[in-house]
Amino acid sequence: MADRTVRAADAVIDVLTLAQDLLRTESVTPAQGAVFDILETALVPLGFTADRFVVGEAPDGPVENLLAVRGGTGPHLAFAGHVDVVPAGEGWTGSPFSGAVRDGLLYGRGAVDMKGAVAAFIAACAAAPAAIPVSLIITGDEEGPATYGTRALIDRMRERGLRPDLCLVGEPTSAARLGDMVKIGRRGSVNIWITVPGRQGHVAYPHLADNPVTRLIAILSAIDAITLDTGNAWFQPSNIEVTDLHVGNPAHNIIPGSAQARLSIRFNDEHSGQSLIDRIAAVAAAHAPGAEVTGRISGEAFLTEPGAFSTLVSDAIEDETGSRPELSTTGGTSDARFLSKLCPTVEFGLLNATMHKVDEAVAVDDLHALTRIYAGIIARAGA
Amino acid sequence: MADRTVRAADAVIDVLTLAQDLLRTESVTPAQGAVFDILETALVPLGFTADRFVVGEAPDGPVENLLAVRGGTGPHLAFAGHVDVVPAGEGWTGSPFSGAVRDGLLYGRGAVDMKGAVAAFIAACAAAPAAIPVSLIITGDEEGPATYGTRALIDRMRERGLRPDLCLVGEPTSAARLGDMVKIGRRGSVNIWITVPGRQGHVAYPHLADNPVTRLIAILSAIDAITLDTGNAWFQPSNIEVTDLHVGNPAHNIIPGSAQARLSIRFNDEHSGQSLIDRIAAVAAAHAPGAEVTGRISGEAFLTEPGAFSTLVSDAIEDETGSRPELSTTGGTSDARFLSKLCPTVEFGLLNATMHKVDEAVAVDDLHALTRIYAGIIARAGA
Repeated sequence: MADRTVRAADAVIDVLTLAQDLLRTESVTPAQGAVFDILETALVPLGFTADRFVVGEAPDGPVENLLAVRGGTGPHLAFAGHVDVVPAGEGWTGSPFSGAVRDGLLYGRGAVDMKGAVAAFIAACAAAPAAIPVSLIITGDEEGPATYGTRALIDRMRERGLRPDLCLVGEPTSAARLGDMVKIGRRGSVNIWITVPGRQGHVAYPHLADNPVTRLIAILSAIDAITLDTGNAWFQPSNIEVTDLHVGNPAHNIIPGSAQARLSIRFNDEHSGQSLIDRIAAVAAAHAPGAEVTGRISGEAFLTEPGAFSTLVSDAIEDETGSRPELSTTGGTSDARFLSKLCPTVEFGLLNATMHKVDEAVAVDDLHALTRIYAGIIARAGA
Repeated sequence: MADRTVRAADAVIDVLTLAQDLLRTESVTPAQGAVFDILETALVPLGFTADRFVVGEAPDGPVENLLAVRGGTGPHLAFAGHVDVVPAGEGWTGSPFSGAVRDGLLYGRGAVDMKGAVAAFIAACAAAPAAIPVSLIITGDEEGPATYGTRALIDRMRERGLRPDLCLVGEPTSAARLGDMVKIGRRGSVNIWITVPGRQGHVAYPHLADNPVTRLIAILSAIDAITLDTGNAWFQPSNIEVTDLHVGNPAHNIIPGSAQARLSIRFNDEHSGQSLIDRIAAVAAAHAPGAEVTGRISGEAFLTEPGAFSTLVSDAIEDETGSRPELSTTGGTSDARFLSKLCPTVEFGLLNATMHKVDEAVAVDDLHALTRIYAGIIARAGA
C-alpha cells in the first residue's frame, strides 16, 4: 500500500495496524476489556476523553461501552459503531483472529462488521481538524440482545448533556464496491410466534380429535395471502417469512396436541411492530380461536429523509470514488434505529459481502479509502 | 366379583387372575419371554400344544410369537391377539404394571389392548368343549413394526399345514359398552413424508432465498382441500391428517433451507396405499418441483363382508348383552389385515376408550362377560 497517496490520517494512525490490533483481540458479543483498551489508547492522544462503563450483563457476560468525546465548536458529529463480533464459526482458511493480510485482503472476524470501520473513523479523526466536535459511540453489544449497548450510550449522553447533531453509523452498507450504497433508514423487524392448541387423538378417530396442524395451515395460508403494502418512495415492500414450523410429534398414528410456527416480518414505515402482531393475532383467532400469538419487536422502521446530512455524506463519497451512492433502506436492522431518534442518521461503511461469513475480509485499499471518506465527512460536518 | 354367576370357565381359569398375571409382566413391544411363559403355563393344561418361536429382531429386541393349537373336528377357529403393549407414558394414578383393581376396574397398560381379551379367550377355552379345534395366534409385535409378528405366525401355520376357517381378533372394538361393536374390516393406512427443499437466506433479503415453508404451506393447503371419497356401504370416508411439521430452524432471521411434513392417511377400499402416495406426490410436485415424497404403507384396506361368521359372533354377543353389535370398519389398522386373507375374520374385544392412554383399565365385569361371549363363539363355531 506504500505506493498509494495517503492523507495525514495515515501519517498519525495507520488504519491497517489499528484494524489488525482490533481483529487480533477476540471480542465475541458481549465485548469488554482489551478491545476497548486499544480504542482508548488510540483516542486519548488525539484529544478525546474516554468514558468507559458497564451498565449491565448480557447473557454471556458484562457489556462494556465507550463514549469518546472531543469538544469543539459547530455541529456535533457522532460516529456509532461496535467492537463486538459474531462467533467465528468453522471453516476459515486461516485463524479468524490472526489479522493476516493475503493478496491485499485483511482477514478476520469483524473485518467489515465493523472493526475495520471503527479503525477507519479513528484514523480519520487523527487527520481531521481537531476543532470539529466529534464523538465516538462504541458498544460491545450490537450483535447480541443490544439491551445494554447503544441504548445505554444514548442514556449516558443525555445524562452528560451531550446531543449529537449528526450521526454516522459505520455498518457495512456498501454492496458491490465501497461507496455504492448508504442507508438512510431501515425496515423494522418483528418475530411472531403462533401456537395453535388442538385436541390430541388417534388418526383413526379424527372426529374425536382436533388437528392443530390443519388450523395452523389455514392460518399460514391466510398470512401468505396478505400484501402488507407495495413499498413506497423510500422503502421496499414489507415482507413476511415463516421461518420455523414445529410440531415434534414422534408418533405416526397420533394427531398432535399443538402446532407452532414462527414468523419474521421486516416492515417499512407504514407499520409498527405492534400493529403487525395484532394483525397476525386476528388472522390466527379467525382460524383457531384458542391460538396464542406472541411477538418480539426487534426494532421499528425508521427513516432519515434525504437532506443536508445525506448530501454531505454523498459528497464525501463522490470525492473519493467519483460516483454518488444509492440512498437505501434495505437490509436488516442496526443500532441506527436508536440513534435516528436523536438526529439525522446515515449509515455508511465497508462492503457487506463477507459479514457474518467465514473468511470475513476487507480490502486494505478500502480501509484507506474509507478513512479518507470519513475524514471528508468530518471536515464537511465542521465546515 | 364373588357374588356373580360365573360359568365353568372361571372355575378352571380365573380370567381376572390371568389378566393380572399378564399385566404385571411388563412387555412393551417387542414382547418375549416371561409374558409368553404365562400363556404357555395356562394353555398346556387345557390340551394345547405351544409352539413358541423367534424369527427376527425388531429395532428394540427379538420378537417372540406363540402358536397354540388344540385339535378336534369341525371348523377351525383361530383367535389372534398380542401380548406386547405400547409404552406406559407418564401420569398414571398408580403403577401401570401393578394389575391393581380399584372400584371394579382392573388397571394396567394392556388391560384392554389386549391382555384382558387374551386372558378372556384362554378362560373361554377352558370352559368350551375340548373337541372343537381352536388355535391361538399370539404375537409379541403388534404395536411395533409388526414385521416378525402375525405375518410370521401365518407363515408358521402354512408350514405346519394349519389353515383356520374362521378368525377372531381380540382387539378392543367395543365403543360405549361391551359388545356394541365388532369390526368386519379396517381401513388401510399409509404414512407419507413430504420434504420441500428451498434456498436458505437472510429474512432481510428474501429475493435471494426461496422459502420452502411457503411452498409446503401451499402443498398442505391443497391437500387439505382434497376429498378422497365420501365413504361407501361399509366404510367411512378416507381421511388425511398432517401429523407432524418440522423445520428446526433456530435462527430467527434466517429463511430455512428445507421444510418437512408427515401425513397419515386412513383409507377405505376405494384406494390403495400406492395410489395415495402417487396422488400426494403430484400435489407436492405442482407446488414444489424439487419436493421429495416418500410413503410407507402400513396396511391396505380390507373387508370381510357380513356373513355366517359375523352373524355367529353377533349371536354370541346378543346372548350375553341382549343386543346385537354394530358391524363396523372404523378405527385403526390391526393384524386382521393379514388374517383376513386366510379366512373370514371378525374383530371383537373390550372397550377401547382407554387404549394407549394413561390409566388404561377394564371393568372386571367386562372381563367375565367377554369370557362368556368368547366361550359362546367357540361353542357356536363347533356346533
